[in-house]
Amino acid sequence: MSGSTFGRSFRVTTFGESHGKAIGCIIDGCPAGLALSEADLTPFMERRRPGQSSFTTGRKEADEAEILSGVFEGRTTGTPISLLIRNKDMHSKDYDDLKDLYRPGHADYTFEAKYGIRDHRGGGRSSGRETAARVAAGAVASKLLGEFGITVRAYTESIGPHAISSFDPDEKNDLYMPDKEAYEKASAYVRELMEQCDSAGGVISCIIHNVPAGLGEPVFDKLSADLAKACMSIGAVKGFEIGDGFQAALSKGSCNNDPFFIKDGSIAKKTNHAGGLLGGISDGSDIIIRCAVKPTASIASTQHTVNRMGDETTLNIKGRHDPVIVPRAVVVVESMAAITIADALMVNMSSRLDRMKEFYN
Amino acid sequence: MSGSTFGRSFRVTTFGESHGKAIGCIIDGCPAGLALSEADLTPFMERRRPGQSSFTTGRKEADEAEILSGVFEGRTTGTPISLLIRNKDMHSKDYDDLKDLYRPGHADYTFEAKYGIRDHRGGGRSSGRETAARVAAGAVASKLLGEFGITVRAYTESIGPHAISSFDPDEKNDLYMPDKEAYEKASAYVRELMEQCDSAGGVISCIIHNVPAGLGEPVFDKLSADLAKACMSIGAVKGFEIGDGFQAALSKGSCNNDPFFIKDGSIAKKTNHAGGLLGGISDGSDIIIRCAVKPTASIASTQHTVNRMGDETTLNIKGRHDPVIVPRAVVVVESMAAITIADALMVNMSSRLDRMKEFYN
Amino acid sequence: MSGSTFGRSFRVTTFGESHGKAIGCIIDGCPAGLALSEADLTPFMERRRPGQSSFTTGRKEADEAEILSGVFEGRTTGTPISLLIRNKDMHSKDYDDLKDLYRPGHADYTFEAKYGIRDHRGGGRSSGRETAARVAAGAVASKLLGEFGITVRAYTESIGPHAISSFDPDEKNDLYMPDKEAYEKASAYVRELMEQCDSAGGVISCIIHNVPAGLGEPVFDKLSADLAKACMSIGAVKGFEIGDGFQAALSKGSCNNDPFFIKDGSIAKKTNHAGGLLGGISDGSDIIIRCAVKPTASIASTQHTVNRMGDETTLNIKGRHDPVIVPRAVVVVESMAAITIADALMVNMSSRLDRMKEFYN
Amino acid sequence: MSGSTFGRSFRVTTFGESHGKAIGCIIDGCPAGLALSEADLTPFMERRRPGQSSFTTGRKEADEAEILSGVFEGRTTGTPISLLIRNKDMHSKDYDDLKDLYRPGHADYTFEAKYGIRDHRGGGRSSGRETAARVAAGAVASKLLGEFGITVRAYTESIGPHAISSFDPDEKNDLYMPDKEAYEKASAYVRELMEQCDSAGGVISCIIHNVPAGLGEPVFDKLSADLAKACMSIGAVKGFEIGDGFQAALSKGSCNNDPFFIKDGSIAKKTNHAGGLLGGISDGSDIIIRCAVKPTASIASTQHTVNRMGDETTLNIKGRHDPVIVPRAVVVVESMAAITIADALMVNMSSRLDRMKEFYN
Repeated sequence: MSGSTFGRSFRVTTFGESHGKAIGCIIDGCPAGLALSEADLTPFMERRRPGQSSFTTGRKEADEAEILSGVFEGRTTGTPISLLIRNKDMHSKDYDDLKDLYRPGHADYTFEAKYGIRDHRGGGRSSGRETAARVAAGAVASKLLGEFGITVRAYTESIGPHAISSFDPDEKNDLYMPDKEAYEKASAYVRELMEQCDSAGGVISCIIHNVPAGLGEPVFDKLSADLAKACMSIGAVKGFEIGDGFQAALSKGSCNNDPFFIKDGSIAKKTNHAGGLLGGISDGSDIIIRCAVKPTASIASTQHTVNRMGDETTLNIKGRHDPVIVPRAVVVVESMAAITIADALMVNMSSRLDRMKEFYN
Repeated sequence: MSGSTFGRSFRVTTFGESHGKAIGCIIDGCPAGLALSEADLTPFMERRRPGQSSFTTGRKEADEAEILSGVFEGRTTGTPISLLIRNKDMHSKDYDDLKDLYRPGHADYTFEAKYGIRDHRGGGRSSGRETAARVAAGAVASKLLGEFGITVRAYTESIGPHAISSFDPDEKNDLYMPDKEAYEKASAYVRELMEQCDSAGGVISCIIHNVPAGLGEPVFDKLSADLAKACMSIGAVKGFEIGDGFQAALSKGSCNNDPFFIKDGSIAKKTNHAGGLLGGISDGSDIIIRCAVKPTASIASTQHTVNRMGDETTLNIKGRHDPVIVPRAVVVVESMAAITIADALMVNMSSRLDRMKEFYN
Repeated sequence: MSGSTFGRSFRVTTFGESHGKAIGCIIDGCPAGLALSEADLTPFMERRRPGQSSFTTGRKEADEAEILSGVFEGRTTGTPISLLIRNKDMHSKDYDDLKDLYRPGHADYTFEAKYGIRDHRGGGRSSGRETAARVAAGAVASKLLGEFGITVRAYTESIGPHAISSFDPDEKNDLYMPDKEAYEKASAYVRELMEQCDSAGGVISCIIHNVPAGLGEPVFDKLSADLAKACMSIGAVKGFEIGDGFQAALSKGSCNNDPFFIKDGSIAKKTNHAGGLLGGISDGSDIIIRCAVKPTASIASTQHTVNRMGDETTLNIKGRHDPVIVPRAVVVVESMAAITIADALMVNMSSRLDRMKEFYN
Repeated sequence: MSGSTFGRSFRVTTFGESHGKAIGCIIDGCPAGLALSEADLTPFMERRRPGQSSFTTGRKEADEAEILSGVFEGRTTGTPISLLIRNKDMHSKDYDDLKDLYRPGHADYTFEAKYGIRDHRGGGRSSGRETAARVAAGAVASKLLGEFGITVRAYTESIGPHAISSFDPDEKNDLYMPDKEAYEKASAYVRELMEQCDSAGGVISCIIHNVPAGLGEPVFDKLSADLAKACMSIGAVKGFEIGDGFQAALSKGSCNNDPFFIKDGSIAKKTNHAGGLLGGISDGSDIIIRCAVKPTASIASTQHTVNRMGDETTLNIKGRHDPVIVPRAVVVVESMAAITIADALMVNMSSRLDRMKEFYN
């Protein structure tokens, strides 16, 4: 069955394999009238693009997304926006040896179990490259959210055991880690692992600011549930939290409840343990989510595995791989969060008869 | 917009408020030929039912689910199965004082922000009582999975700081905690909090056994993503993990990758850090998920809050509330997991042309 | 797979068999704040109810729809509205002889081909009785549309060869045929067929008035396509037209195009061959649709058929059957049209960024 | 909201405007293992391509569909198949005069009412050119159906008043009309209308052969309802029939019911008034549908209309237009029917527990 579509009203469908001709997506349902050009996509694509730093794969992809439809004279028309990214720097031969092997930690075995056939080159459809299409769509969603003053910002909270202890918005580095001291420790840690032909994981945080109260649909389509699905659909993400997450399980009701009070004439909360949602619906405070990212599965050291013929064997992965994918996944988490919020913003509009009547009056 | 439906092929739509006439659900798409009667639902309903122990609300509900349709001569017919649970022991007056108040940790404020109106009695639609309909549907999904030898088993892993240190399948207690020592500590802990008019949270684990390899649809409808959505749609769940979850972020590729080997002629994995999925598709090993449950929001101690008129005030919650909802949520997690797997099992059938041709031959 | 749900934002899921315990539906997504009570459903249920006239089955069903959820203090709350209709006057024994027979014109054979099992009593799920749940939902949709000044009115255009030649809004009769002369001919025709143990078909027209321009989503979810699906999903409907329908195929562009002009300062069309839609999107003029209804399949005369064992045999249908179902189907067409328009009205709200910004400002 | 996706398991999402950079589609959910190359698409694209005969627009488009993803070493992999068709021979200047005009019979006015903006060049998204993407997807669906021995064949039944009186499978002509005599009359008729700067409509029939019994999901997703939606979503289609369609309304139950009998040991029907479906589910006999196509809205004679500024004016359409679109729409109807059946074939697989158990054994 089809599983490459996300969203109900702001609806993203992606396609493409790592070493195929192209990857891309169709965004169906984006409201008409949004100013949009390829230049809006570039900053997002740049953040995910390979070859940015010593911590990313040597694959060189310009990753320029071409807008094929849905934009006329600089504005969206309400019709499907098709975004196309041609694949260029593919070294498919690097994967010839892997044709019959199942790499540990990868989807080789499961794709073959499901489909009986797989494009083994670069991981095919299960490659992290697929996320480039998500990021292109995320750029559009973020532009749309900007029109409502909503911002979505993700960053690296930790790499392996090295977590940030403060948040410095001016700190810029190639791990997207907003704490210089933690960054230095983390980059030393990753470099050490690279020497050991090993890899690291980490945690990505994302803060969504200025979301109006009322988004999210009870009961199954809670905004928290949709954000969880959005993030857990990213290949390497193994855990998801909203607000205090697993810490909440250790807390008490008297501490975990966020008391309401009046701030500048409006309803606000003194704390935000809940992470911006109550009953799965946004309460107007910041939405705070966290994603656990596993260590890169592709490592250069020798691994034990099996092949399709059912023989045990060993494996040495060549090719070009990131020692840690966390920094490049930051913009992917941000993109999925933006798509989810954009969708919720549209879906929510018919919740009240009085507001519908105003709208159509 | 509608948000009360879960699943694509095994499709559950719930309805009902805590103090309305009834709650229930329609299961649309259940395969024809499954033996099913009300007796199959009872053991599941019993596990969630209030009034089982000193740790659950005093509300007395028989919670008998009536099958209204979709079953003929003891077997499902392929048509929608409608399940109805009448509400009986409602003390709606207990909630009169809350009519204009927004309870901290509850969805009162957000439902009103979204809809401009709310049924304040017992939390209305956002009440945990809504999960009774999920459990009725989960019982059907579990029965269906049983036909394929698939089992889904959830249990309490921890209450507050008290976690199990071993797993004793024979240990039966009212916290559904499979470790007698941990149970005793946890129950003392909860009793202490009750005296303090406070509440506890905890963690629920769920193991899904014997799932065939190949379930889950790339890329957005990964089985991990669907399980995350399923669990995070349960009111009090604030975090979700699959396999090693957040621990994976601290690990290294060389440790976190699960090596393949041949076991009894079949492909197997030496470890299961991934938790039963690779690339979001089941690999045939146990699927292992964990859910963080927040402390019950309804506590008897005085809390600060605001009312709809925008005044600050204090609140004392009367009514009947669980000091910890973890034990009753165990079967809810199990039910949502079962529904998700049942759906994935059906959806997966058209993945391969050769198998489709066999099917239609 | 599930097929008992219609609509995206105003979402109706029905359940129930002709001789099961009950039929009903869940409406998920209805906007909050709509005044609603059982009294709003009654006039719709009455129009479909059996036993109204000599042309309808003798089955006696009060067909009272009970609202189980989603309404609080007389208004919808935005949560699912569950409607329940208990079956009462069932003569299941009338169907004992049909258990192993496949009735011509009925779904007995195809349900069994699909599911391997069927509830043979009264047609089970394929019975026209299923439409009672649609009508209950249609009553809610019509009430909602009324808030926007939109009206939906269906009527009998013809029975067999007898068509109306004028439209008299004051003419009331049990065939719902707004032309007294045609009614008299049609009723004589039906009575004659009853004597011959035979049955009649007919055509139902439906006019939807005051729909704002802009409803319907290109390209697959055109409003015309959704209306077609809505109507063609009614058991006995075999044809669907919008505007001039099949007559348009005989016309010329110079005649069939509807010229625009300015009427009272607004854009209007001089003719309405298109039937209220251009490019599948409403243009503000009346939406006009027509449905062809086949003759009742259940006839009392002897028919040739086969049984499940694969033997040829003959069949005499007992039970209580309408000699023509057109009059009772009028309100079903009206209901499906109302549900479709209500859904389109909600779905359309996010089409323009400028209007979304106004909405959220 | 999004409306550019059709199907549940075999899921087609199209994009593109008449004068944009490209049109195309993503097919998500096609089973893995289907032999597929661009050569499979060409015969379908050729049948819809402009410039085939004197009856089609002079626009010259090679209409070569490029496969961007989802196919590896000549076979589908189960991942999304992206098909891209670049637009080439666009004369956008022909449309400059139409920028502010609303053409009668076109979607100019309604797109602007809905979106507040439109790409006026060549009709933008509402252009018949959009159907090229459907045809590319239809070619894939037809290839898939061929693996099951299912054939879908559409043809022109009538142009204006000239209908076929017999069916000659060997007759090949540029109106796709399988009756030489009718073809000659019809082509003379169209030529006459061309001289008068006018246009013609017609009827397309489609026969789907060898569909297994059991496809289609009760009650809203009947196969008849899905076929109706599929066909009515084609821009110029104004009417839809299955089997006897509107003729059934004139018939009697004794004539319209198709008696079952045993043919070569299998259940068959003596007649096929129903058109291959009972209760919306396929019965194994030929599925027969008919679509009414309106006359081309773009005619060269002077028409009255209004502009966006609200002034009445006249209009002379330049550009290149078909005097009758029926012949080019034949393959579009065939494509939409093939997509619908392919989807139903996949969706149906989980209807029975016994067959699911065989499948997973």
